[in-house]
Amino acid sequence: MSKPAVVLLSGGLDSATCLAIARSEGFSAHALTIDYGQRHRSELEQAARVAAALGAASQRVVSLDLRAIGGSALTADIAVPKDRAEDGGIPVTYVPARNTTFLSLALGLAEVLGAADLFIGANDVDYSGYPDCRPEFIEAFEKLANLATAAGVRGTRFSVHAPLLRMSKAEIIRRGMALGVDYGLTHSCYDPDAQGRACGHCDSCILRRRGFEQAGVPDPTRYAE
Amino acid sequence: MSKPAVVLLSGGLDSATCLAIARSEGFSAHALTIDYGQRHRSELEQAARVAAALGAASQRVVSLDLRAIGGSALTADIAVPKDRAEDGGIPVTYVPARNTTFLSLALGLAEVLGAADLFIGANDVDYSGYPDCRPEFIEAFEKLANLATAAGVRGTRFSVHAPLLRMSKAEIIRRGMALGVDYGLTHSCYDPDAQGRACGHCDSCILRRRGFEQAGVPDPTRYAE
Repeated sequence: MSKPAVVLLSGGLDSATCLAIARSEGFSAHALTIDYGQRHRSELEQAARVAAALGAASQRVVSLDLRAIGGSALTADIAVPKDRAEDGGIPVTYVPARNTTFLSLALGLAEVLGAADLFIGANDVDYSGYPDCRPEFIEAFEKLANLATAAGVRGTRFSVHAPLLRMSKAEIIRRGMALGVDYGLTHSCYDPDAQGRACGHCDSCILRRRGFEQAGVPDPTRYAE
Repeated sequence: MSKPAVVLLSGGLDSATCLAIARSEGFSAHALTIDYGQRHRSELEQAARVAAALGAASQRVVSLDLRAIGGSALTADIAVPKDRAEDGGIPVTYVPARNTTFLSLALGLAEVLGAADLFIGANDVDYSGYPDCRPEFIEAFEKLANLATAAGVRGTRFSVHAPLLRMSKAEIIRRGMALGVDYGLTHSCYDPDAQGRACGHCDSCILRRRGFEQAGVPDPTRYAE
């Protein structure tokens, strides 16, 4: 029987690739999707399709009302920046403590399922400047996980896998294509239109589009324009 | 102007005392209550009353559907143990990764409010055996907080205050009474009846009742029997 793992799955390009990698490493992958009131709700519908297409053992959606906390263009009435020059700063699409919260929920589910392995599609290269996508954050969470849980007390050693951490977007896409990911099922745009079509101008669209160009493969994204 | 802090407030005895301590230390205390689908929903109503009575600067309720994860007598259809002998084990009322998740949400709110101080009423003495109430857990979360956040990158040093960590229940009650906490407003029982009255027999009721006895003060709890 294959080992269980919990994979955070947003429905975007990175987390879909991360799920495919977990599957390719032989894990029985339980996908965890968080409905946190995100502006780009299309990704939630895509997450279920991605989970099914990539053979996830299960998929759950956990609702968490981060709009009650706000502070981000994704969870409050703050405009999503368009055609932004990279400035090395932390953009307003940063959601305070999002990856910490999501990994905590993944950890809780891992305990319930008897899993010791967590996967997150965090990326430190093309990563838009989010602090909770850095390797030192991932390491600190792994340490915390062993102290935080009944499983840790009983001897489980948790591993937080972030296989995309050092890959460029083009490398992620090439790896995913080799593993059979259908990127037409994924959604990345922070500010899609009512039909779920990508804006083509937010940070996430720009990184995604450039990734397909650099990978030399057709971009399957449905753009609004 | 007083410094802002985020205080996790469940509506129970410990977190109410923790809020009173934060106020007594001069913080402008923003209470954060998590509606996680807990069986003992009466505590949510009490949290608002406690926040008002103790002069919280604000109170928010964030909804998080931990029933989609389950694994605990508080979030799944598992019976709450009654009249249990203490066995040193981790009881089924443990909610996987709950304090990790709640502190993550408190951290997100702290970033939004510009606060560097988090308060949690975790207790390691009369604590029922929960792993995420140990000092090493609190320390590990503090380290994580500085790595996880935009505020941390910009130089904020977060402090996680757990002022009850080493106190007995009787000491907590005496401290709270000295600070004017009305424990008649608080709710601790894991398995209240439809009128919100305490069962008197779950771990939480037993610890609470013994605490009032040992503190030598009248127990204001409304019991079902």
